[in-house]
Amino acid sequence: MTSAKPSRLLPADATQMKEQNLAQAILAGDRLALARTLSQIENGSPTGRDTLSELFQYTGKAHLVGITGASGTGKSSLVNQLTRHIRQSDSQQRVAIVAVDPTSPFTGGAILGDRIRMRDLAGDPGVFIRSMATRGSLGGIASATASIVQVLDAAGFDLVLIETVGAGQSEVDIARLAHTTIVVESPGLGDDIQAIKAGIMEIADIFVVNKADLPGVENTERALRSSLNLAHPIPHHFLHHGQLETSLSSERSSDTSVAEWMPPILRTVALDGNGIGELDRAIRDHRNYLESSGDWEIRERWRLQTEFDLLLQSTLVDGFLSHLPAGEYEHTLDEIILKHLSPFEAVAKLVHGNA
Amino acid sequence: MTSAKPSRLLPADATQMKEQNLAQAILAGDRLALARTLSQIENGSPTGRDTLSELFQYTGKAHLVGITGASGTGKSSLVNQLTRHIRQSDSQQRVAIVAVDPTSPFTGGAILGDRIRMRDLAGDPGVFIRSMATRGSLGGIASATASIVQVLDAAGFDLVLIETVGAGQSEVDIARLAHTTIVVESPGLGDDIQAIKAGIMEIADIFVVNKADLPGVENTERALRSSLNLAHPIPHHFLHHGQLETSLSSERSSDTSVAEWMPPILRTVALDGNGIGELDRAIRDHRNYLESSGDWEIRERWRLQTEFDLLLQSTLVDGFLSHLPAGEYEHTLDEIILKHLSPFEAVAKLVHGNA
Repeated sequence: MTSAKPSRLLPADATQMKEQNLAQAILAGDRLALARTLSQIENGSPTGRDTLSELFQYTGKAHLVGITGASGTGKSSLVNQLTRHIRQSDSQQRVAIVAVDPTSPFTGGAILGDRIRMRDLAGDPGVFIRSMATRGSLGGIASATASIVQVLDAAGFDLVLIETVGAGQSEVDIARLAHTTIVVESPGLGDDIQAIKAGIMEIADIFVVNKADLPGVENTERALRSSLNLAHPIPHHFLHHGQLETSLSSERSSDTSVAEWMPPILRTVALDGNGIGELDRAIRDHRNYLESSGDWEIRERWRLQTEFDLLLQSTLVDGFLSHLPAGEYEHTLDEIILKHLSPFEAVAKLVHGNA
Repeated sequence: MTSAKPSRLLPADATQMKEQNLAQAILAGDRLALARTLSQIENGSPTGRDTLSELFQYTGKAHLVGITGASGTGKSSLVNQLTRHIRQSDSQQRVAIVAVDPTSPFTGGAILGDRIRMRDLAGDPGVFIRSMATRGSLGGIASATASIVQVLDAAGFDLVLIETVGAGQSEVDIARLAHTTIVVESPGLGDDIQAIKAGIMEIADIFVVNKADLPGVENTERALRSSLNLAHPIPHHFLHHGQLETSLSSERSSDTSVAEWMPPILRTVALDGNGIGELDRAIRDHRNYLESSGDWEIRERWRLQTEFDLLLQSTLVDGFLSHLPAGEYEHTLDEIILKHLSPFEAVAKLVHGNA
């Protein structure tokens, strides 16, 4: 109404106007507005949340693809090459890359390598690259990533590639965020020993053995195949969302028109582009599978419920703690450590005022 | 006061009397009272919680040892043999075993093998074995396990062995519960490919290569050693609890009297008892290290704070949801899925009554 110049002193109406402008600007393709909103969301600013709320109705179109794997497998190069391939084969397809590097609670965080290689994509207006800061809890990062992915979805990116270092819980969090999860391995990591574990096998929709020009690729592939058979004794997609299994099984058992998805194992050499076309095709195939089987809607619901639950939880805890007298939480924790109160008594005292 | 006979109709005083009796009975070594209380805690009964609160002041003495590793590494046999060895070498040492099998969100849970082999320990009054049910969320299992371990601690067990299948987040949860974490590997799993990943390396205080009579043991050992060097470029125990790292580093850098702990790599053959004595010694060494370095208190505080936070969180969420009108949560979730409300708006509406 008055001035559109950003200011902390703007009256409420003008602030709201400004947010709508940000949302409108993002919908119109303004990359600066997009970058600013993503930063606001990452910093937990209310303005960012309000912009996201404006944009939320435009979400639900993008194909969200998670890419995980141990460091050294060449994930970043793979994401880079895949993006280049997609852009070259169909310039209408807009691609966003979100690189997440969850801070391990033990090491203070590994470094997402090869991010610098993405610079050659930066000039392409159909590509947007965003690295996530590693501050905060794992749950907090997952929550912020979910929001960032929603803004990119609303901004009209057809494909959002979410790249993360495979460090425990983060793979599971990716599976909750993504429609399609790609697990990247490579031959010969650590004296012929691979970072393959049961938990990873179960979230993968597509396996990639990258650096497939290295010796030992057959061993890696064979190991993946035997672990895969171990992990998927019954059809894959029934297992994907534990809570929905029962309702799904009964609903789907009568539907024989859609074949089950068996995770393919693909070989790539990201550095020279070998196998990247096949990977692109497998990603499209998986999207088609999700849409024709009805799993797309199921994953959408699961994803949004997880986000809703996380937000509800953090809102309740933050709200509660902010109303406690200063030092009350710490004092109560000390009481537990001195064994004056059990944890149950301490929580009862804090929440209900009685021990 | 009146009758000690269990009844749901007892007046409040008598119920409280009964709980004190249960706590007193556990302190006096009554195994039936112990088993009953553990079941009550696992089922989330208020009686179990009250008994634990009675007992909480007696906790803090037991050495809590977590044992994790992929299925097929022979963890259960190892726990079995270790317990037998400890009991034979010092009959004053009482040992409790808690076998936890966290339900994977994807597969509906693996099976903790070999539990049946523990039957030959069941006749020993200095040994108590408890298997945890797999119901509930991962967080819920971690919380129930923490409570069960506290009851066993109060009941006077000197050593509590917490055995769990190494499935992602559970290893990290063990590190939070245990003073000493043992990671078990074995040669030749899955075509020479091991379930070794960065996250596991960082929580281990002791490595065991079990089934060390199988071919390939040198490869497994070498791979562990190289991953270990990768995972611990700086002294091990500084890394153990990310949040405490800074204060610890400054505090400890002036203290040169205590050597750093370097996780040893031990070979065992659980089936014939080879190497079990060395494992017992390493566990004692680690306890001595924790006590002389001050890490024991740091881990205790970390452990209790984690439990306090989890309980506070679940109490607030459960309390909030129980006061919502029936169907309100589901209705709000539907609004999100229909894109009428963003997750932020939905939470604001639910918590503050405005969207």
